[in-house]
Amino acid sequence: MKKVVLAFSGGLDTSFCCIYLTKDLGLEVHSVVVNTGGFSEEELQAIEKRAYDLGVKSHQVIDETEDYYRDTIKYLIFGNVLKNATYPLSVSAERVCQATAIANYAKQIGAACVAHGSTGAGNDQVRFDMIFNTLIPGVEIITPIRDLKLSREEEIEYLAKHGVEINAEKAKYSINKGLWGTSVGGAETLTSNQYLPESAWPTQVSSTEPQQVTIDFVQGEPIALNGKELGAVKVIQQLQDLAQPYGIGRDIHVGDTIIGIKGRVGFEAAGPLILIKAHHTLEKHTLTKWQLSWKDQIAGFYGNYMHEGQMHDPVMRDIEAFLSSSQQVVTGRVTVELHPYRFVVIGIESDHDLMSNKFGSYGEMNEGYTGDDVKGFAKIFGNQTIIWHKVNEK
Amino acid sequence: MKKVVLAFSGGLDTSFCCIYLTKDLGLEVHSVVVNTGGFSEEELQAIEKRAYDLGVKSHQVIDETEDYYRDTIKYLIFGNVLKNATYPLSVSAERVCQATAIANYAKQIGAACVAHGSTGAGNDQVRFDMIFNTLIPGVEIITPIRDLKLSREEEIEYLAKHGVEINAEKAKYSINKGLWGTSVGGAETLTSNQYLPESAWPTQVSSTEPQQVTIDFVQGEPIALNGKELGAVKVIQQLQDLAQPYGIGRDIHVGDTIIGIKGRVGFEAAGPLILIKAHHTLEKHTLTKWQLSWKDQIAGFYGNYMHEGQMHDPVMRDIEAFLSSSQQVVTGRVTVELHPYRFVVIGIESDHDLMSNKFGSYGEMNEGYTGDDVKGFAKIFGNQTIIWHKVNEK
Amino acid sequence: MKKVVLAFSGGLDTSFCCIYLTKDLGLEVHSVVVNTGGFSEEELQAIEKRAYDLGVKSHQVIDETEDYYRDTIKYLIFGNVLKNATYPLSVSAERVCQATAIANYAKQIGAACVAHGSTGAGNDQVRFDMIFNTLIPGVEIITPIRDLKLSREEEIEYLAKHGVEINAEKAKYSINKGLWGTSVGGAETLTSNQYLPESAWPTQVSSTEPQQVTIDFVQGEPIALNGKELGAVKVIQQLQDLAQPYGIGRDIHVGDTIIGIKGRVGFEAAGPLILIKAHHTLEKHTLTKWQLSWKDQIAGFYGNYMHEGQMHDPVMRDIEAFLSSSQQVVTGRVTVELHPYRFVVIGIESDHDLMSNKFGSYGEMNEGYTGDDVKGFAKIFGNQTIIWHKVNEK
Amino acid sequence: MKKVVLAFSGGLDTSFCCIYLTKDLGLEVHSVVVNTGGFSEEELQAIEKRAYDLGVKSHQVIDETEDYYRDTIKYLIFGNVLKNATYPLSVSAERVCQATAIANYAKQIGAACVAHGSTGAGNDQVRFDMIFNTLIPGVEIITPIRDLKLSREEEIEYLAKHGVEINAEKAKYSINKGLWGTSVGGAETLTSNQYLPESAWPTQVSSTEPQQVTIDFVQGEPIALNGKELGAVKVIQQLQDLAQPYGIGRDIHVGDTIIGIKGRVGFEAAGPLILIKAHHTLEKHTLTKWQLSWKDQIAGFYGNYMHEGQMHDPVMRDIEAFLSSSQQVVTGRVTVELHPYRFVVIGIESDHDLMSNKFGSYGEMNEGYTGDDVKGFAKIFGNQTIIWHKVNEK
Repeated sequence: MKKVVLAFSGGLDTSFCCIYLTKDLGLEVHSVVVNTGGFSEEELQAIEKRAYDLGVKSHQVIDETEDYYRDTIKYLIFGNVLKNATYPLSVSAERVCQATAIANYAKQIGAACVAHGSTGAGNDQVRFDMIFNTLIPGVEIITPIRDLKLSREEEIEYLAKHGVEINAEKAKYSINKGLWGTSVGGAETLTSNQYLPESAWPTQVSSTEPQQVTIDFVQGEPIALNGKELGAVKVIQQLQDLAQPYGIGRDIHVGDTIIGIKGRVGFEAAGPLILIKAHHTLEKHTLTKWQLSWKDQIAGFYGNYMHEGQMHDPVMRDIEAFLSSSQQVVTGRVTVELHPYRFVVIGIESDHDLMSNKFGSYGEMNEGYTGDDVKGFAKIFGNQTIIWHKVNEK
Repeated sequence: MKKVVLAFSGGLDTSFCCIYLTKDLGLEVHSVVVNTGGFSEEELQAIEKRAYDLGVKSHQVIDETEDYYRDTIKYLIFGNVLKNATYPLSVSAERVCQATAIANYAKQIGAACVAHGSTGAGNDQVRFDMIFNTLIPGVEIITPIRDLKLSREEEIEYLAKHGVEINAEKAKYSINKGLWGTSVGGAETLTSNQYLPESAWPTQVSSTEPQQVTIDFVQGEPIALNGKELGAVKVIQQLQDLAQPYGIGRDIHVGDTIIGIKGRVGFEAAGPLILIKAHHTLEKHTLTKWQLSWKDQIAGFYGNYMHEGQMHDPVMRDIEAFLSSSQQVVTGRVTVELHPYRFVVIGIESDHDLMSNKFGSYGEMNEGYTGDDVKGFAKIFGNQTIIWHKVNEK
Repeated sequence: MKKVVLAFSGGLDTSFCCIYLTKDLGLEVHSVVVNTGGFSEEELQAIEKRAYDLGVKSHQVIDETEDYYRDTIKYLIFGNVLKNATYPLSVSAERVCQATAIANYAKQIGAACVAHGSTGAGNDQVRFDMIFNTLIPGVEIITPIRDLKLSREEEIEYLAKHGVEINAEKAKYSINKGLWGTSVGGAETLTSNQYLPESAWPTQVSSTEPQQVTIDFVQGEPIALNGKELGAVKVIQQLQDLAQPYGIGRDIHVGDTIIGIKGRVGFEAAGPLILIKAHHTLEKHTLTKWQLSWKDQIAGFYGNYMHEGQMHDPVMRDIEAFLSSSQQVVTGRVTVELHPYRFVVIGIESDHDLMSNKFGSYGEMNEGYTGDDVKGFAKIFGNQTIIWHKVNEK
Repeated sequence: MKKVVLAFSGGLDTSFCCIYLTKDLGLEVHSVVVNTGGFSEEELQAIEKRAYDLGVKSHQVIDETEDYYRDTIKYLIFGNVLKNATYPLSVSAERVCQATAIANYAKQIGAACVAHGSTGAGNDQVRFDMIFNTLIPGVEIITPIRDLKLSREEEIEYLAKHGVEINAEKAKYSINKGLWGTSVGGAETLTSNQYLPESAWPTQVSSTEPQQVTIDFVQGEPIALNGKELGAVKVIQQLQDLAQPYGIGRDIHVGDTIIGIKGRVGFEAAGPLILIKAHHTLEKHTLTKWQLSWKDQIAGFYGNYMHEGQMHDPVMRDIEAFLSSSQQVVTGRVTVELHPYRFVVIGIESDHDLMSNKFGSYGEMNEGYTGDDVKGFAKIFGNQTIIWHKVNEK
């Protein structure tokens, strides 16, 4: 009997896949769930129970949270990546990590097939397909939901026929929670002109008292919160727990899907948005003009290309090498103030701060150069434009 | 007697220049103030009165507000330009416009010299010098403040000696108000780790009731507010008047000055920040992926290079041609909701919206293509990476 | 009977398509050949004769040479586009033009289908499919060669069965001739390590006497050869006729196909390579540093994206607007010397030459600035790096 | 007595400096010559003799050839850097290396001053000033030639007055020879429209018999010539010795100087041009599309910024990290054929060749994907443009 690895979430679609792969295709199903920080222990146990209820041969939980940070999120922080100046790529980054973990698992257990429950209408199918094609090229990809195009009712009926009862109620919003933010899709996000109502946000606003927090970065990585060294994953999680109840980091992203249509999705990502702005501020104090400029250009591409599932193109390793190199002196403490629905970066402290008073405050003369130096500079700096106008405006 | 055109603001430095140019250098002073939307009628009259009190031969007010919008701000909107993802270039853009107007005025009245009151420590000296060198190459540039390096006290004493009384009190913050935002420098902005106190902001928060506003864009230009056609300049001004009392658009920018040091400055710019995010959102619905991507890259450069005073390099015209071309279908209405200290872009309506349901909602299948098409796409889209891994991971 | 427009070249594949569409699919075939400057009158007549021999309902020759120049080649010259610093995109540019012309023709005659003879292994299928999908979205695309995957022998047999005799001999090299160069594929180009033999080149070397030619550009367009105003298309053609017998402009290009595999192809393109280097040299004398730099970046993308058939993405119009703007002063005469297998750009003359002696020869002092100005410049230009080292190397 | 380190070449200008620093400024002169591969043993001895004849306190030869390759040229090869698609930066790269070595030497011997003989009209003064300002910020920079603006005759007279006889004849061309090419300036290069005559080239053409050579690259570095492992520096030198007598790699570069004027200079650089094209060809076979694309963009900036003397901005280290990462699989053998005045890259062999027949030859179907996959790809790849036209062309 051929083994199939199934990316399993416990929902209707992947429950259907489970039975379908077993009964209709005669495969031995090994379900797997990759935790990138979005699942609680209880949720993972519930998923496992359901998997065995559906008759899988084995079920595996792969905890990729630390790898996810190390291989992906770290670079999104280094690059201050916000897609279209808005979205921290909460879901995109996670899928790439999950698909990679599943491919490696399939290779490890010698599976002949791998299955995912993506529909034919979104980004995820491309990410899963492409990463499986790349990392496990001989393994057959099975996508029942995309291929059969069944309605929810048909899936429920099919499951019932095989003795499986499943909650038939469809949630108004589909929620995807992960280490790097939570997405919210449905209803208003399917229009161009409506915003999500207060009640739609997974985390309701319960904190109203302003408070300051500090984040310590070492070579670009957030390693301490309020002076306590936690390591980056815990800083992200605890900052998220602290800041999300303020309603910080909510927005709607409109962007280009891999398949060419525009997609709109709400998200709440207090931790990611605070960390990116804090990190970016520290960089503005410590990096040179051209470091900031080139980081913007290549990190923008990095985010877009990751979003498109192309994480295994070697150009991504080259960009990561650039980004890592750029973080050498991005070390210091950033203070942030949390308010309902917003936050303010108060300032930074760093031994590598290029704004040190020793080298001249803005607007005040300093010892490094004279007004005459600047006169000469202005003349030479503008020299080519001066010549251009002389030549072309006679 | 040789004519000198003096960029005059009525403050201590340019008042000193006025007397110094007349008495010590024996020049005929023609003072000029360029209004780019930041001065009220009363302020302009007060400046004129002071100029004549200081004995200028003539005083001229040049209203450049419309030109400023047409030649500069329009492109900052087209490009969604926020320096380092933060600052709308409120002061930088204005200086370039002012220097250009002054140069043209000097040419028009046949001045032999042109003078500005910049110190030797900031960006403005470079902008003024460079633009004068370019546009009026034979005209001598005189910069008494930079050259003499007098203290405030010395300047006041000098003026008193020449019978001029001037208010000697130095404001705690130096404020620069213009059509594209107001900057606030001093005290906390001279440190890296302190934020401006509530009292430092020129516009105090007085509006607390949330309200929605609509902005209509035609080919990228904001032409109507709440359905009323006003033209872009008035949209900017009225939106600013409406939104600034909410405390929206306040932040501190840390950036690279032209002369290589880091500078930190506070700003309040509710109108610019709302317009840029509203415009960007409309673009995300109407432009293609690569239009958005290339706009980011060249507009980032455009903003930085304008900041550095290089507005007269012909490359800026080429970028403007790109940006103008990209706005062909950026037409539609954007709804924004104002709250104390923040705003939310609710959504857009546009005949050019690429997210139309006719072409498939995100997450739902549509008529344009099939799941099989996407399978094929995923295979070919990832083909090179697949091959790379086959070749290099054997 | 449904109409089908067939892109017809008179070769084996499209002859097969002709019969197949008529007999097997029962369609009314309207064959069309788009001349982009590569066909002689005799060749066009031979193709027409064959079309009618194969029983087409109508045959149309569309001469797109001038449009091809105006819409495509002009921008390749403006952008000095050489893919991977080597290949002038001879075939890629032509296909885009041909596909567009065919789509417009199909729309004009109200065809229900459009057919092309591309195989499933190259770039052309993607260009044709994509441009048809874009410009004539309701029209069905039929691709018999790609779908049926017949061998040459099977095609010949099929044709014979339908009473059509065709020359069964396969040429060792497949040649594609157009206004912007001739490609040569086969044998050695299918390896990575062999070069084309002398005999493989379509134009054998017959000119050995060095000669100088001049090319006059007006706003970036080549309008005269040796002082004779001809218009750009004739300049390209006559320069090609003059220079190709020297063996100039031969090389092998290795590049990325749209479908992710690497492809290698020989080409001879004396005219395009001379024009691009001549034009680029004129630009180096007349454009500013940042114009040259940004042109490189966006023109590189423009060439790659055109190569991938994406000519109808509006971003291409935006880039063309940039490129056109940049050519304002690219006017002057360039002298080139032709030698066997190579050419030398001797120099340029232009009223817009920024290297005019009036503004200082390189290496000699001039009136525009002093050594002290440069000292000041060097201090300020390096200021940030100076500070960075002070801060970080203590 | 204060120590001054003098960058000494033995020519008229630096001989003058030697005496001037000693006699007029009363400094203890420590002359230094940095060999970056351009000086023969005899030349170095002649320079040393002259230094002591001029009365220096000490004279030092610093051989930086290996460091020059490792810190600079290596990255120019990785990046295929040709300024404006023409010039391998022969002189620019060398100056940066020399200035850095001199600064380190000055620090080592505790010099109070450092002197260079640059005039006020070229690039070198900025490079020297900027690098000294950065690396040895407290050390005074003395530039007698720039400051005194003496004529050759005045310098000769001054030297004669101090008992020094020097050959007063000025060479028609000024030649600068280094590991990465030889520049030739003067006479025709001071015009825009004249080419250098055959006699002006330092290496006259003496080889006419075509020959093939092979270059082996390991992770981007050229380590063997004709199968013999030599290390990169010797490969460069021996290839240059072999190829320059063919007259290969001659051209005239017109470019932007750091000080804003255009400069024109001839160069012969057979070795660099062959290595760059060979390396680039190997990359086209082994790197992905986006690696090639991003390498172009950042390497273009790298070359320009190095040319401007900004080698010590940390952004250069970040770019080097990117470039190094990209070379991981750039390993293989390239065959090149030398002819008089030109060369041809015959082809490559590499275990990392992505054009392997195993994955489909261009133009032939393969096992990796089907025609249907490509149909789906074309539909999705063009999807956004299709939608754009539907929305905007109704």
